[in-house]
Amino acid sequence: MNSFALISALQSLFPADRIFTDPVDCHAYSYDNSRNFNPPIAVVFPLTAEEVRAVVLLCNEHEMPLVPRGRGTGTAGGSVPERGGVALSLERMNRILAIDPDNRMAVVEPGVLNQELQDAIRPSGFFWPPDPSSAPYCSVGGNLATCAAGPHAVKYGVARDHVLGLKAVTGAGEFITTGCHTTKGVVGYDLTRLIVGSEGTLAIIVEATLKLTPLPRAVGGLTAQFRDTLSCARAIAAIMAQPFVPSALEFLDNNALNLIRNRHPNMLSAEMRALLMIEVDGSESEIAEAAAAILQACEVDGLIEAKAARDTQSLWAARKALSPLLRDVAPKKINEDVAVPVSRLPELLGGVESLAARHNVANVNFGHAGNGNIHVNLLVNPDNPEEMARAEACLDEIFSLVLSLDGTLSGEHGVGIAKRPFVPREIDAPTLALMKSVKQAFDPGNVLNPGKLFP
Amino acid sequence: MNSFALISALQSLFPADRIFTDPVDCHAYSYDNSRNFNPPIAVVFPLTAEEVRAVVLLCNEHEMPLVPRGRGTGTAGGSVPERGGVALSLERMNRILAIDPDNRMAVVEPGVLNQELQDAIRPSGFFWPPDPSSAPYCSVGGNLATCAAGPHAVKYGVARDHVLGLKAVTGAGEFITTGCHTTKGVVGYDLTRLIVGSEGTLAIIVEATLKLTPLPRAVGGLTAQFRDTLSCARAIAAIMAQPFVPSALEFLDNNALNLIRNRHPNMLSAEMRALLMIEVDGSESEIAEAAAAILQACEVDGLIEAKAARDTQSLWAARKALSPLLRDVAPKKINEDVAVPVSRLPELLGGVESLAARHNVANVNFGHAGNGNIHVNLLVNPDNPEEMARAEACLDEIFSLVLSLDGTLSGEHGVGIAKRPFVPREIDAPTLALMKSVKQAFDPGNVLNPGKLFP
Repeated sequence: MNSFALISALQSLFPADRIFTDPVDCHAYSYDNSRNFNPPIAVVFPLTAEEVRAVVLLCNEHEMPLVPRGRGTGTAGGSVPERGGVALSLERMNRILAIDPDNRMAVVEPGVLNQELQDAIRPSGFFWPPDPSSAPYCSVGGNLATCAAGPHAVKYGVARDHVLGLKAVTGAGEFITTGCHTTKGVVGYDLTRLIVGSEGTLAIIVEATLKLTPLPRAVGGLTAQFRDTLSCARAIAAIMAQPFVPSALEFLDNNALNLIRNRHPNMLSAEMRALLMIEVDGSESEIAEAAAAILQACEVDGLIEAKAARDTQSLWAARKALSPLLRDVAPKKINEDVAVPVSRLPELLGGVESLAARHNVANVNFGHAGNGNIHVNLLVNPDNPEEMARAEACLDEIFSLVLSLDGTLSGEHGVGIAKRPFVPREIDAPTLALMKSVKQAFDPGNVLNPGKLFP
Repeated sequence: MNSFALISALQSLFPADRIFTDPVDCHAYSYDNSRNFNPPIAVVFPLTAEEVRAVVLLCNEHEMPLVPRGRGTGTAGGSVPERGGVALSLERMNRILAIDPDNRMAVVEPGVLNQELQDAIRPSGFFWPPDPSSAPYCSVGGNLATCAAGPHAVKYGVARDHVLGLKAVTGAGEFITTGCHTTKGVVGYDLTRLIVGSEGTLAIIVEATLKLTPLPRAVGGLTAQFRDTLSCARAIAAIMAQPFVPSALEFLDNNALNLIRNRHPNMLSAEMRALLMIEVDGSESEIAEAAAAILQACEVDGLIEAKAARDTQSLWAARKALSPLLRDVAPKKINEDVAVPVSRLPELLGGVESLAARHNVANVNFGHAGNGNIHVNLLVNPDNPEEMARAEACLDEIFSLVLSLDGTLSGEHGVGIAKRPFVPREIDAPTLALMKSVKQAFDPGNVLNPGKLFP
């Protein structure tokens, strides 16, 4: 590793306004929403695939880590320059290259913001389904690198379901083109979906051909209030076991409801201990049919009331604000996004409540219940080592519970740094070894985001 | 390679009723629907993942090709033991291990027939969307290995969209477990979709966790008749550019219609030169809305009539019989399944007609128009070398046309042997080299289906 020579080479490649080396400038590129922090020696802002490739080749030559980065909104540390090296920000490769509603397709550079894309395609009657809470300020490239999703994944799927092809630069500095411009294509291996969700460890996406989905004609909202978590979990399973798929099915436990109550004193009744926020979409008649079926599935013992909601906007705003609200309560949240088959949700949610009580850790649970994907938050004070130890012990048991229920440790946030130590509990040794061989095939110099994702 | 030692080792592994070595017995395992033929030295019928692994290890030890095989219905030669070696038939690993409607999931062994699976899950109100014409006699494992699809892919997607996870044995003989039991999961690389569509060159699937889809409540049929191919192609593009997605959108050109006319003299009017068979599904109200919008999109210059069809069953039966009917007309068909973005279908279909005329080759086109996926058939007599040369020249120009229209050489059949020489025209050299490195990571001995898929 020769930092000076590399920086000098980067400086001759990039004009002064597209390279940072001053630690003050680099600061904002040293962390993500996981609050892990390590500064890069330089940040570069390529405008073209050729510039991306040149940086990859230089980092190979100088054996220096290269950490690609969208807008740093990830929660698992995937874009943190943990081992220093160069941060490659794709934020200025932000052109929408084509919107082609006739073929239900858009072609974008990776730095386009999710919301910018939605705004650009909405007039054509389409949307791009991945909808993380950070949509206004996260990039499509980052959405693809993490296989992002959001509340609407229960009906519309995740990022990998909405990409047709990619142009990318591998860790070896090769330009590759994966996938195709059609909704069916079986020539060669599916490298597209291998790169999606690989957290910048295999290749840097420089262009994506996205599949667009027609906007629903209308959207209807329902809410269902329950006396306790377990009855709510049973209703979730009943909703998903019947054929009408809600377009969103969000769960909030009583501690999450309390966070909202603190901010909006009159919004929620006192007796409810769990809430489902449900969305159905389609034509008016579809909405009516789906709503009736879903309201019926909510009729479990413990239901207080399930009904159509006139105006769900303020409730959704409160739901979207939950993650930041958690920081009101405790200086640190350990935020996991485990997922289990929906029929196992009663066991998961009951189990998490018991474990949090037994370890005496403050716990708030909410999330995308239709996918069995629950955000389990343990709220702690990092300056209290005894509390931190209890939280870690609790988390360890929560992960064991999730895996015993046929679940996964991450439904949408990814591994990054945060989940890395736990990966061998989910993925067996031969499969993990094979993933490492795949990494080696793409990135023989181990330059791209080294150390991430693997234990 | 030591055939005798390998056969002897296989014979001690498998009881006599689960190993064939007599060439007469092996004959049926020497070809697929591509009509390529080469006999294996032995056929084995494992019942367990452990037996599959033992065969993989033996073939590595003896440096002998191993060709996994579902039911041999592929049309590209993917399961033909081109270089001899051992054919591994998965037809006896045919148990449905779990049907779990509450989690919209089924777990199967690879040898389960597609139709057997559909029959088993239908009473729960679900189906598994991949629906190749061969559904009654093709296996789910083969469907996954080729990323199969069928008429309903236009609405429901292809095999890769309907699998959650796999258990497989790699070419190195390692057991791996990919994916998860939930509809969201981002721990590690997406090896599931890398294996799907890899035509048995990376790993042998021994168990699959499939995602199930609720059966539509009702299905409606429409037909639209056109005076010529080009007006029909414009209608296809117009149908796909509006938001209501048909559940099937099948195109038949005049030569395809003539094949049906020969068998069913009174079914089709004489004046139509192109036909769309359209299906819409959902609730009755959804069907009504979608049908109205689609019939309106059909209103292009050249439309004879577009209308709801009372009974489409006989028409669908005729459509499904088209592939075999082609063999009535000529001893050999060169059957391609190219796909282009739907807005380019007028150029594709017009271009193919011109090229076939210029090269004086009989040509029949039909297929899954909603995906831009057209079965282009060139009908030839293989004993006529001059005609064969004209057909090959025509095919070459058709492929160039497809690629110039941003299309792909195969929408659903795969590469196998048939498309292998043309792969470098679609996939650039660095991407192809990377795919070979991925193959090497899974199968360092190049034992699994060697030579397939790569030029």
